[in-house]
Amino acid sequence: MFFRSLLFLTCMLIQHSGAQSSCKELKTQRPDLEDGLYTLRASHAQEHGEEYQTYCDMTSDGGGWTLIASIHENNLKGKCTVGDNWSSQQGNKYNLPGGDSNWSNRKTFGHIVSVTEDDYKNPGYYDIDAASLAVWHVPNKTPMHQWKDLSLLRYHTHCSAWEEHGPNLFQLFTRIPVKHGMGRCQINNGPSISIEYDQGDDDVVRSLYGTATRVSFETGYISFRAINTDRSAFAICSGTKPTGCKPENHCVGGGGYVTLQPNCGDFSRFDDTDATFKASTAVSEAALLLFYN
Amino acid sequence: MFFRSLLFLTCMLIQHSGAQSSCKELKTQRPDLEDGLYTLRASHAQEHGEEYQTYCDMTSDGGGWTLIASIHENNLKGKCTVGDNWSSQQGNKYNLPGGDSNWSNRKTFGHIVSVTEDDYKNPGYYDIDAASLAVWHVPNKTPMHQWKDLSLLRYHTHCSAWEEHGPNLFQLFTRIPVKHGMGRCQINNGPSISIEYDQGDDDVVRSLYGTATRVSFETGYISFRAINTDRSAFAICSGTKPTGCKPENHCVGGGGYVTLQPNCGDFSRFDDTDATFKASTAVSEAALLLFYN
Amino acid sequence: MFFRSLLFLTCMLIQHSGAQSSCKELKTQRPDLEDGLYTLRASHAQEHGEEYQTYCDMTSDGGGWTLIASIHENNLKGKCTVGDNWSSQQGNKYNLPGGDSNWSNRKTFGHIVSVTEDDYKNPGYYDIDAASLAVWHVPNKTPMHQWKDLSLLRYHTHCSAWEEHGPNLFQLFTRIPVKHGMGRCQINNGPSISIEYDQGDDDVVRSLYGTATRVSFETGYISFRAINTDRSAFAICSGTKPTGCKPENHCVGGGGYVTLQPNCGDFSRFDDTDATFKASTAVSEAALLLFYN
Repeated sequence: MFFRSLLFLTCMLIQHSGAQSSCKELKTQRPDLEDGLYTLRASHAQEHGEEYQTYCDMTSDGGGWTLIASIHENNLKGKCTVGDNWSSQQGNKYNLPGGDSNWSNRKTFGHIVSVTEDDYKNPGYYDIDAASLAVWHVPNKTPMHQWKDLSLLRYHTHCSAWEEHGPNLFQLFTRIPVKHGMGRCQINNGPSISIEYDQGDDDVVRSLYGTATRVSFETGYISFRAINTDRSAFAICSGTKPTGCKPENHCVGGGGYVTLQPNCGDFSRFDDTDATFKASTAVSEAALLLFYN
Repeated sequence: MFFRSLLFLTCMLIQHSGAQSSCKELKTQRPDLEDGLYTLRASHAQEHGEEYQTYCDMTSDGGGWTLIASIHENNLKGKCTVGDNWSSQQGNKYNLPGGDSNWSNRKTFGHIVSVTEDDYKNPGYYDIDAASLAVWHVPNKTPMHQWKDLSLLRYHTHCSAWEEHGPNLFQLFTRIPVKHGMGRCQINNGPSISIEYDQGDDDVVRSLYGTATRVSFETGYISFRAINTDRSAFAICSGTKPTGCKPENHCVGGGGYVTLQPNCGDFSRFDDTDATFKASTAVSEAALLLFYN
Repeated sequence: MFFRSLLFLTCMLIQHSGAQSSCKELKTQRPDLEDGLYTLRASHAQEHGEEYQTYCDMTSDGGGWTLIASIHENNLKGKCTVGDNWSSQQGNKYNLPGGDSNWSNRKTFGHIVSVTEDDYKNPGYYDIDAASLAVWHVPNKTPMHQWKDLSLLRYHTHCSAWEEHGPNLFQLFTRIPVKHGMGRCQINNGPSISIEYDQGDDDVVRSLYGTATRVSFETGYISFRAINTDRSAFAICSGTKPTGCKPENHCVGGGGYVTLQPNCGDFSRFDDTDATFKASTAVSEAALLLFYN
């Protein structure tokens, strides 16, 4: 009785102390863990690491996926206004080509429970070294216990394809900044990485974007820092690899300046006034949840 | 000595683990607890619940009141600008009729110590099932240990009156959204619930609002989703039940669009340019603290 | 073996419970502690104090320095826009002379890991009674383990010079608000306190500001609430004591209104259009980290 009590204490302490720095570490130690909230402790911070609670997907593809960010459009008509954390909250400004620069800094924002209702970024974004990425498109306002089931689309990077571009988005976007004027369309785009679908397929990807947009990408990829005709940059093209020069219609998270108005914003030109270029309502009203493994 | 030390460890662990999800649960287990900060753990989140610190009123009406939100006007001249979390931070926009939608989502913001200096919303807002509500009007910048004593007005819902409208504000405002264009003045207003005063009375309520406004409400109620002449919605009328169609002068937390300028904002038109409609300085410079029991 | 395990448990608990309210208390109890992140618990909050993680400098001048705030300019061209927490996020407004008032309230913001990428303020700002202050100018985006080494300038207040003005910035700026219209240049300025350099010297201070600005200050001081010709107020002049009436060129953190455009913002007029008044790029692209001891 006495020793059991002591053992119980020890377990609680270990769990609470957040000695693990990723869901993968947790899963390795305790293979029986289920999807849900866990406390992690950042490992790269010196001395004592920063603690944070986040969601672990402990069951897809062997489990161990750490939710590290979400991209949510709070106001598709608001162009680089409050809430556009992944582009800019300063308006569309030529003299601020990188906007809020959150793709390549250590700022964190949002709260784990409301990642389908607000932009989100936790210390895992820059702290964890990832062997692969996963993305879920989850309809806005979906509660946590339904994120996985109600996703429009879920996928992860193919085999070890991410490894040469990582180890995480912080470092990728430090090397290739999401900034206006960094290069030319197609020529200076970042990498496109092939993906495996966990929910959905190529047809679902196509259905997310405008009919006229579909001719300007290939499906089956996740792409980074896509550049358009006007040298504006977009951070992530989800499910797609741009073959043309209009990534503003299917990529998210632009820099601080997009030449043609009104294009600035987390979901840039998903609300194109031309109905054939306009993204689907489903993808426009869903958050992208980003995971590391 | 040894066993005492172990017992001490156990107590600290239990306290820290925040096993309780409301101040009411804490109070039930330990009736001697006093007003102050406690750590709670949200119960509805799956697996491991989200932890947060908040203030418990452990003594009014039997105690067990959890502070779950505050509504604070940071700039009465700023109309739906930064800091207007309970209306909109996107400006007054017809195409964003629900504004920031924070009455009916799981976004959280602010910090417990500064609820009289900033808007505040914690996970209790959507997590706790409440049998009753309480509201305190606390002058801006009042420190925590004086919130209760310096309140202009304190009251809670009468007997079990809240039960048919709950179990919390998140669910109430999911059913009846705070949004422009949802219905007509009086006809589509939400419920009005009778209250019992803990500090102040009907006369104090009247004194908070403009002399010309007083003829457009009854005292002794808290009302939800009041609609005005122009189909704009206001979340909470504190101490009042609108009998007319000008709730913008005594209700707080509008949606994202208010037809007549300049009305958009957390405290909407408390700064009416007509001195007879203008709310008192006392209520305009006080935050509303919201509690569940 | 058994007792060692129990002892270990006790240590972790004490560390985690954050019983200490400042790095100085921690250092006094455990003189061997090194620079890094620690959990503190605010002492002034009643009953249970608010817990927070922050950085302790445990080695400079005997150690025990608690990081309590940082002032970071996110957009020098953005004048009192989103991110200008230490001046105003409401635009340059005559009717909001104190701007966001964060120098004299208990609002907290930002995250400890990203203090060189965003404004930061923790509960220590108002909770800790300080015997002295220290300031570091750290280039933007510098990671935590290099803050100290890569600082442009580091200094602390001389001997007990702070004691008559404290015990902290919250109380100082409650007594002398950072607000437009509070008095006249020079006559109503707040205190200037002499400093000792930990890194850098008078020449480094001069090099930070414009050549034409250097004739309007003395070096070797930190000054508070400097007022300019137009009765606008600036919170902190780092390394300097204004002798003229143009503190907007070398002081940070203004109130909500600065007469001459475009001057409103956390770093006010560091981007003067006159190159001889313009501050150096080095100081414009560095955050000020504030410590208490």
